[in-house]
Amino acid sequence: MEALGRREPELYGTITAAELDAYLIGQHPGDELDIRYTNVEGEAISWIYQADLGDHDGLVMNPAGFLHEGIALRDCLKTITMPYVEVHMTNIEKRGFRSATASVADTMVAGLGAHAYVLGLAALRTILNR
Amino acid sequence: MEALGRREPELYGTITAAELDAYLIGQHPGDELDIRYTNVEGEAISWIYQADLGDHDGLVMNPAGFLHEGIALRDCLKTITMPYVEVHMTNIEKRGFRSATASVADTMVAGLGAHAYVLGLAALRTILNR
Amino acid sequence: MEALGRREPELYGTITAAELDAYLIGQHPGDELDIRYTNVEGEAISWIYQADLGDHDGLVMNPAGFLHEGIALRDCLKTITMPYVEVHMTNIEKRGFRSATASVADTMVAGLGAHAYVLGLAALRTILNR
Amino acid sequence: MEALGRREPELYGTITAAELDAYLIGQHPGDELDIRYTNVEGEAISWIYQADLGDHDGLVMNPAGFLHEGIALRDCLKTITMPYVEVHMTNIEKRGFRSATASVADTMVAGLGAHAYVLGLAALRTILNR
Amino acid sequence: MEALGRREPELYGTITAAELDAYLIGQHPGDELDIRYTNVEGEAISWIYQADLGDHDGLVMNPAGFLHEGIALRDCLKTITMPYVEVHMTNIEKRGFRSATASVADTMVAGLGAHAYVLGLAALRTILNR
Amino acid sequence: MEALGRREPELYGTITAAELDAYLIGQHPGDELDIRYTNVEGEAISWIYQADLGDHDGLVMNPAGFLHEGIALRDCLKTITMPYVEVHMTNIEKRGFRSATASVADTMVAGLGAHAYVLGLAALRTILNR
Amino acid sequence: MEALGRREPELYGTITAAELDAYLIGQHPGDELDIRYTNVEGEAISWIYQADLGDHDGLVMNPAGFLHEGIALRDCLKTITMPYVEVHMTNIEKRGFRSATASVADTMVAGLGAHAYVLGLAALRTILNR
Amino acid sequence: MEALGRREPELYGTITAAELDAYLIGQHPGDELDIRYTNVEGEAISWIYQADLGDHDGLVMNPAGFLHEGIALRDCLKTITMPYVEVHMTNIEKRGFRSATASVADTMVAGLGAHAYVLGLAALRTILNR
Amino acid sequence: MEALGRREPELYGTITAAELDAYLIGQHPGDELDIRYTNVEGEAISWIYQADLGDHDGLVMNPAGFLHEGIALRDCLKTITMPYVEVHMTNIEKRGFRSATASVADTMVAGLGAHAYVLGLAALRTILNR
Amino acid sequence: MEALGRREPELYGTITAAELDAYLIGQHPGDELDIRYTNVEGEAISWIYQADLGDHDGLVMNPAGFLHEGIALRDCLKTITMPYVEVHMTNIEKRGFRSATASVADTMVAGLGAHAYVLGLAALRTILNR
Amino acid sequence: MEALGRREPELYGTITAAELDAYLIGQHPGDELDIRYTNVEGEAISWIYQADLGDHDGLVMNPAGFLHEGIALRDCLKTITMPYVEVHMTNIEKRGFRSATASVADTMVAGLGAHAYVLGLAALRTILNR
Amino acid sequence: MEALGRREPELYGTITAAELDAYLIGQHPGDELDIRYTNVEGEAISWIYQADLGDHDGLVMNPAGFLHEGIALRDCLKTITMPYVEVHMTNIEKRGFRSATASVADTMVAGLGAHAYVLGLAALRTILNR
Repeated sequence: MEALGRREPELYGTITAAELDAYLIGQHPGDELDIRYTNVEGEAISWIYQADLGDHDGLVMNPAGFLHEGIALRDCLKTITMPYVEVHMTNIEKRGFRSATASVADTMVAGLGAHAYVLGLAALRTILNR
Repeated sequence: MEALGRREPELYGTITAAELDAYLIGQHPGDELDIRYTNVEGEAISWIYQADLGDHDGLVMNPAGFLHEGIALRDCLKTITMPYVEVHMTNIEKRGFRSATASVADTMVAGLGAHAYVLGLAALRTILNR
Repeated sequence: MEALGRREPELYGTITAAELDAYLIGQHPGDELDIRYTNVEGEAISWIYQADLGDHDGLVMNPAGFLHEGIALRDCLKTITMPYVEVHMTNIEKRGFRSATASVADTMVAGLGAHAYVLGLAALRTILNR
Repeated sequence: MEALGRREPELYGTITAAELDAYLIGQHPGDELDIRYTNVEGEAISWIYQADLGDHDGLVMNPAGFLHEGIALRDCLKTITMPYVEVHMTNIEKRGFRSATASVADTMVAGLGAHAYVLGLAALRTILNR
Repeated sequence: MEALGRREPELYGTITAAELDAYLIGQHPGDELDIRYTNVEGEAISWIYQADLGDHDGLVMNPAGFLHEGIALRDCLKTITMPYVEVHMTNIEKRGFRSATASVADTMVAGLGAHAYVLGLAALRTILNR
Repeated sequence: MEALGRREPELYGTITAAELDAYLIGQHPGDELDIRYTNVEGEAISWIYQADLGDHDGLVMNPAGFLHEGIALRDCLKTITMPYVEVHMTNIEKRGFRSATASVADTMVAGLGAHAYVLGLAALRTILNR
Repeated sequence: MEALGRREPELYGTITAAELDAYLIGQHPGDELDIRYTNVEGEAISWIYQADLGDHDGLVMNPAGFLHEGIALRDCLKTITMPYVEVHMTNIEKRGFRSATASVADTMVAGLGAHAYVLGLAALRTILNR
Repeated sequence: MEALGRREPELYGTITAAELDAYLIGQHPGDELDIRYTNVEGEAISWIYQADLGDHDGLVMNPAGFLHEGIALRDCLKTITMPYVEVHMTNIEKRGFRSATASVADTMVAGLGAHAYVLGLAALRTILNR
Repeated sequence: MEALGRREPELYGTITAAELDAYLIGQHPGDELDIRYTNVEGEAISWIYQADLGDHDGLVMNPAGFLHEGIALRDCLKTITMPYVEVHMTNIEKRGFRSATASVADTMVAGLGAHAYVLGLAALRTILNR
Repeated sequence: MEALGRREPELYGTITAAELDAYLIGQHPGDELDIRYTNVEGEAISWIYQADLGDHDGLVMNPAGFLHEGIALRDCLKTITMPYVEVHMTNIEKRGFRSATASVADTMVAGLGAHAYVLGLAALRTILNR
Repeated sequence: MEALGRREPELYGTITAAELDAYLIGQHPGDELDIRYTNVEGEAISWIYQADLGDHDGLVMNPAGFLHEGIALRDCLKTITMPYVEVHMTNIEKRGFRSATASVADTMVAGLGAHAYVLGLAALRTILNR
Repeated sequence: MEALGRREPELYGTITAAELDAYLIGQHPGDELDIRYTNVEGEAISWIYQADLGDHDGLVMNPAGFLHEGIALRDCLKTITMPYVEVHMTNIEKRGFRSATASVADTMVAGLGAHAYVLGLAALRTILNR
C-alpha cells in the first residue's frame, strides 16, 4: 500500500511524518506499508503505475496540493486496477476546495486530522476483504 | 446519535433498513442510538434542533436526497453545537453530485455502501473522545 | 393512479379542484383514480414511494411549484418502476421555466389548461397498453 | 394542418414515414392533412408563412434537428396567427435537449414515439374547438 | 397578520421568541397578530394561502432559511392579494445572501435585529392605510 | 444627517424634492438634517468623507443611479465610522436590480415610495439610540 | 447593390415589399439596385459570394432572422471585399438581441423602420465615395 | 439638439472638434445646435435632464467612454421624453464593445467616422418629422 | 466517398476546386470519389443520408462554415453507419474555433492546407481496411 | 509627473497626504512633481489628457477606487503617449481585486504601503532613461 | 524528431511501446527518430527546449495527460521554432476533452489508435518538405 | 534570497541568464544571492520549503510558466514565513494573464524587463528593513 503526499502543515505541528509512519505501521502489524512523499505530480503518477503493475493491493493517498489541478493524476487513477481510497486530513469542503481526484476514488474520508489515514486504511481493508 | 434518511435503493437490495438498524445497534453496545427517517427537510431540521438542545452527543447523517438543495438544512447544521459526521453510501463525487451540507460537517465519509455508517460512527466516536 | 399538486390559480378561476376530480373520474369509468394534493415536497415523495410499492399502475403528476427546485422529487421519480407522465396546465417553456422533474418522465404534456390532465391520462393509458 | 420533419431514426425502424402518414390520415377522416418533410430550416420557414397566409387552420410540427439552433424558425412561429403544437417522439428533457421553438408553442407533447403525433393532433383539435 | 419563521440564533440570545411575540402584540394594541413558526416550506405555503383566502389583511414574514431556495414559496407569494412585507434581522446583503422571495415583496426591511419586525409592521400599516 | 440623491422620477410626480425636504425636516424637529443632491458619484464620495470627519451622526442615502456600478461609493461607505442606512423608494429586487452599496449598509429599507425616507430615518434613530 | 431579407412583420403592415423596392429604386435613379429575398441562410451566402466576385459595388443587408445564429453568414461577410452596411428596422438592442453579423459590418444602422434602408444606402454611398 | 462627448482620437487626427462643430452647424442652417463636451458622466446626466425639461427637441449623443459602464446614464436616458439617437464613429461591434446605453436609444448609427454625426442628425430629423 | 464544402478562401488562391478534385481523383486511381459542394446545411444532411443508405463506403468532409452551429448536421452524422473523417485545411484550434461536428467523427485532421484532404482520405482508407 | 488619487485610509493613519507629498518631492530634487487628488473619474481623465498634451513626461497614478470600474479611465490611458506606471499601496490581488487600468500600464507596483510611490517613481525614471 | 508521452492504455493492450518504437523507426529508414517518455510536464518542457535549440527538425507529440492543464507546456510550444504536430490516439472531442496545447500546433491528428503516429509523422514530413 | 524561473525569451535576446545573475550579484555586494532555475513546479516547491526552513531571509521569484496553473505553488507560498516578492518582466495584465501566485505575494512588480528583478530585490530589502 502507498500513502503519498502528507505534506499538510497542520499535521507536522503535532506529529512528525516519521511518527505518523511508525504509528500506521504499528497499527497494521500483518500488512506491508510502502509509504512515499513527493511534490512532483508526474513522479506520483509513475509510482502509482509501477505499484499497480507490481504486487501492491491498494492505494491510500492524500493528494494534498494536487487536489486543485491534478487532472493528469486523475487520469492515472482511473486506469489502475487496485482500489483507491482518498484521504484528507481536513474536511476540504469546509475550506471551499473540491478534489480533482475524488471522482475516481472508491471511498473518500475527509477530516479528523492524521486519524484520517487510520480510517482510510480501515476502508481499504474493508474493500480488500469483500 | 441520529442517523437520518438512509433511503438509497442500492442498500435496500441487500440489507433492509431494520437489519441495518439492528446491525449498527449491535456494533455499539454501550451507546444509545436514536435512528430516524424522513423525506421532509423541515422535519429533519426540527429533529436536529431538538437533539442538539437535548442530550444527544453527536449526529451521523446521510442527507440523501437533501444533498442537492438542502441549504436550509445546512444553515441548521451550521448553528448546532454537537459534532456532525456526514456519510454517503456511494462516493458522490463519482456520480457527479456535490453535497450542500458537506461544508458544515466535521468529517465526511463517502463510499463502502452500508459500511459507511460504521465508519461514520467510528469517526464520531473519535471526535467525542478528543 | 395519482394526480398530485394541481394548485395553479389559472385553473381555480374556471373549474374547481372538486369539479376537475369529478370530470377526470367520469372520463375514466373503468379506472380507479387516487387523487392527492400537497404543498410539502417530502410528503409527495412518501406518497409516490408507497404507491409504487403498492398496486398503483402509473403516475400522472403536475409538479407545480416543485418544478423549480424539486431535485429530491426527481431522485424519487428516477427510482420508481411505474411509468410517470408529467403534465403542466401551461406551456412552461413560454413562461421561461424548466421542470427539474421532466428529465425522468416517460412523457410530458404542457399546455391546454385543465385539459392537460386528460391528455396526460391518455398518454399513461397508451403506455400501459403497450 | 402540417406535420413537418419526422426524420427521427427510432421511428423508421418500426413504422415508415408513408405508414405514419397513412395512419394519421386514417385517424382524421374529416380533416385535410398537409404533410411535409424538409432538412432545410429556411424551407420550413417559407412553408409555414405560406400556410399561415393561406387557409391552414393550425400546425403540428416535430422540429427534429432544428430544436437545437432553430432561432430563425422560432421567430417565424412567433409571428404566425394559427396555433402551433410541438411534438417530439422522445422526451427530449431525458436526452438533455432543450427545444429552441418550444417557448412559442401553444402546447408541447414529448414522448410516446410515433403516438406523439396522435396526441399532438388531438391537442390541436382541442385548441381549434375552443 | 402572520409573522413566520423567526429562527435566527442572533435573536434567541437576547430575546426569546415568546418575549418577541409579547413585545410585538404590546406594540399593536388594536391589531390582531397571528404569529406562526415552521421549518417546513410547504406548511408555510399552506398557511399563507389560507390566510389570504381568510380575513388576514397582510403578511410580515422573515423567510429565514427559505431565503436561499424558496422558489415555491415565492410562487405562492406572487399569487396572494394581501400585501407582503419581508423582514430580515440582519442585512442579508452584508452576509452575501440574496433572498429568493424579496422580488415579490411590497417592501423589504433588512437589519436592526428583532427591531426589524417593528419596522416591518410599521411598513405594513403604511401600506394598509393608503 | 445627509440624504443624498433622491432623483427617482416616480417621486417627482406626486411630491417635489422641496416638499419632501420640508416634510422630513418637519418630522424631525430636534434633529438637524443636511440634505444634498448630486448626479456625480465622486462628489457624493467627497461629501460623505467630509461629513464623517465632521460632526454628522449618520447617513441615510438613496444611492439611486449609483446602485448599479457604485463600487467606488461602496469603498467609501465601507471606511466611514458613522452608521449608514440605505433607502430605495421602490423594492429594487422587484425591478431586478441589486444594489452595489447595500452590502456595506447597517440597514436597508426598500419600497413604500417617499415614505422609505421616513422609515430610513427611524432606523437611523434606532441605531443611534443603542 | 443587394438588400436581402426584409421579412420583418412591422414593415409589411404599412408598406409592402414591392412598395419599398420601388421607393428605394426611385430614391437612387443613377444606381442599379439588385434586391433579393430568402429564408435560407446558405442561399444568401451563395448570392453574396457571387455578387462579390461579380461587379456589385457593395452590400446593404438586413440579416433579419439570421442575426441570432448566422455564424456561417458572418464568415462569408468577413471574406468579401465589397463594403457591407447592416441595417435593422428596429433598434435590436432595445429588443435584447445582438447581431452575429454586426461585427463584420463597416457600418450599422438600427431603428427608423423602413427608413433604415434609406440611411443604409446613404452610408454605403458615403463609403463608396471615399 | 445636443451632441456630447466626441472625444475619439481617430477623429482629432483629421478634423478638429471645432471644425466638426462648424461643419455640423453649417449642414443644419435652420436648426439650433447646442454642442457640449464632458468627461464626467454625472455632468452629462445633469445636462440631459435640463435639456429635456427645457426646450430641446432631441438628443444626438456619442457616449464614447461611457458606453462601457454608463448604467446611470442609461437610467437617465430611459426617463427623458425627447428622442435619443446614439452615434459611434466606429462600428463598436467590430471592436468587441457593447454600448450600455444603446438599449434605450431610438436609433443607433455606428461607423463612418465623423460622418456618423451627420447620419445621426438625419435620423433625428426623420424622427421629429413623423 | 463524399468530400463536401471545401469553400475556404485560403485554398482558392493557390489551387482551384477543380484542380483539387482532379488531384484527389488522381491520387486514388482505384477508388470512386463523389465530390460535392453546398452552402446549405440541410442539403448536406440530405446528401449524407442518401449516401449512407446508398453504396458509399465512407465520408470525408470539411464542414467549413457549418463547424460553428452545425448541430443538426452533427445529429445526422451521429446516425449514419459509414465512417466519417473530418478535415480542416487550417488548425481550427489556432483560430479559436471548435467544431460542432468533430465529436461524432472517427478521426479528425486539422491543418496542412489542401493536403488535409489527402491525409483525410488516407485515414478513411485505414479505417476501411481494418 | 502626476500622482493622482492617493485616498487609501491605511496611509492617512501614519503619514498625511501633505507629508507624503513633501517626502516624494524631497526624494526627487531635480524633478518637478505635479501632485493631484480627485474623487471624480472624469476629472482625472481631463487632467491626464491635459498633462499628456502639455509638457509632462510621465504618469504615476494610484487609481484607488477607480480600479473597480474605471473603464473610461482605461480608455483614456490607452490613448496617451507618455508612460504610465500604476501603483497600489497594497497587493490588490491579496484583497481579491483586479485593476481595470492595469492592462494599459507600462509597469505595475503593488504593495509596500506609501513606499509603493517611491518604487513607482523609480520605475518611471527607468522608463524615461531608456 | 521527438514523440513524447504515448502512455494511453488502449495502446498497450495490442502493441507495446517498444513495438511501436520499432515500427515507427522501420517506417522511416532515412530519418533519425528520438523517442522519449515522461510523466513530468517540466521534464517534457526542458526536453523540447533542448531539442529546439539543438538540431531536431520537428516535434510529433501526444500530450496525453498534459492535454487537460498543460498551459506551461503550451507556452513552451509557442516559443519554439521547429514545427509541432499534435497526435491523439483517440478522437479527443468524442471523449469530451479539449487539448490545451492544440492551439499552438501546426497540425493535429486525432483518432486511428497507434496509426495516429504514422499520420503525424507524415504530416511533419509534409511540413518539412515545403 | 532565491530568484527562480527567469525563463522568458524576451530576456534571453538581450541579456543572458548568466549576465543577469552577475549583474544582480554585483548590485548587492553585501547580500548572498541563491539563484535557481527549474521547469518542474514540484521541484520549485521543494526548494522553497527548504529555503524557508533554512536560513534564507526572503524570496524574489518570477513564476513564469507556473503563473497559469500554479495552485500547488500558491499553497506552498501561503505557508512559508519569509516574505515573498513576485516579479514579472512584462506587465502580465497587458498580455491578458493573471498570476495564480500573486494573491499570496507581499509585493508584486510587473514590467521593465530584466530591471523588474532589480526593483523586486529593492522591495524585498524594504520589507526586511522594517
